[in-house]
Amino acid sequence: MSVPKLTYFAIRGRGELARLVMAAARKQLDEVTVDFACWEEMQPGTTFGVLPTLEVNGKEYFQGNAIATYLARENGLYGSNNLDCLMIDQIVQLKEDILTVEINTVVGSDQDKMSALKKLVSDVYPRTMKIFNRFIHENPANSGFVVGDKMTLGDLAIFEGTQSCFNSDSVFLSGFPNIMALREKVAAQDGLKEYLARRKTLVPIHSFLYTDI
Amino acid sequence: MSVPKLTYFAIRGRGELARLVMAAARKQLDEVTVDFACWEEMQPGTTFGVLPTLEVNGKEYFQGNAIATYLARENGLYGSNNLDCLMIDQIVQLKEDILTVEINTVVGSDQDKMSALKKLVSDVYPRTMKIFNRFIHENPANSGFVVGDKMTLGDLAIFEGTQSCFNSDSVFLSGFPNIMALREKVAAQDGLKEYLARRKTLVPIHSFLYTDI
Repeated sequence: MSVPKLTYFAIRGRGELARLVMAAARKQLDEVTVDFACWEEMQPGTTFGVLPTLEVNGKEYFQGNAIATYLARENGLYGSNNLDCLMIDQIVQLKEDILTVEINTVVGSDQDKMSALKKLVSDVYPRTMKIFNRFIHENPANSGFVVGDKMTLGDLAIFEGTQSCFNSDSVFLSGFPNIMALREKVAAQDGLKEYLARRKTLVPIHSFLYTDI
Repeated sequence: MSVPKLTYFAIRGRGELARLVMAAARKQLDEVTVDFACWEEMQPGTTFGVLPTLEVNGKEYFQGNAIATYLARENGLYGSNNLDCLMIDQIVQLKEDILTVEINTVVGSDQDKMSALKKLVSDVYPRTMKIFNRFIHENPANSGFVVGDKMTLGDLAIFEGTQSCFNSDSVFLSGFPNIMALREKVAAQDGLKEYLARRKTLVPIHSFLYTDI
């Protein structure tokens, strides 16, 4: 495989899971950063009309989670049997469910934003963090990771899916000790440690939500 | 594997892709149908707080697309190499993007519904149908299917992802001949032919959208 090229905005959003996979694999990822201000003009000329895209061997692919899963399979970070892969896939999709509501807290009318924020705090965060925490607890390997005894895409998806919650309300998240322990284990891995040290700027994107870009 | 048990509402929604996979594989799928009227009361007592769920060997899993992908892998309906799997995954996620907007046309305030409908007709359908059509056209195997020379989860996801559009405006969809030909090929497969003959009731869920349940 040639060095894959990720094209996305300078935010975590739907590109971050792919970046985390490549950092964890200590593999090179070329990145093209698109300026939000230019996107509207660029969009009609793009292949899919949405970002991120990944170019592999001259061909373009899209859908952030499909891209991250491809890169995870390519680098030995997926499950080793079908049920483990199902567990990882459901975690990746739960991360997406969280992100969708988080995005809704910062776009649209003020009323839409408030409604999304209420849903995030009263429903999505409590429900999904409980599921993540339980999944880690119920891993038969009892490794602190969510599937088997080594780090996989599932752990990276929990790390990324809990990141905005952690930035915004770490006291709330500390009520889920398995998540907090997993976050520490993931952040200490070679490759990720160096990547996360570079990704350090906290930017408020809402009165409640903070992001690191 | 014991017979898997799918729990969901009596709609296509996020359960249908799993049903199509099992019909195509001619495998038994136990189904538990939840009444919408009972859901609010049931919800707090459920494992994940959302449907569908799949029970396999006594353990519950969730997320419709993760479930369908697991069943596809179990039954030889996934890709045969990593890039084919990426192609299939991005199609499954594109189907989800369409469904999300379709759902928004039937829930929320009248203003929200109208806004989603406008987005569906002016952006989502034209853009996504063009992508599906092109993917089928560009399959090097030139099989009429979207990946390789036999039917996979990718074809089932295109079939399902274009179903509401087909029900509602088949004239518009006929502008995408590769999709129409794929829909015919898929619908003619053993197992699916019989399943689709049973799934015949067209129900209007909106002035524009029709569903078969």
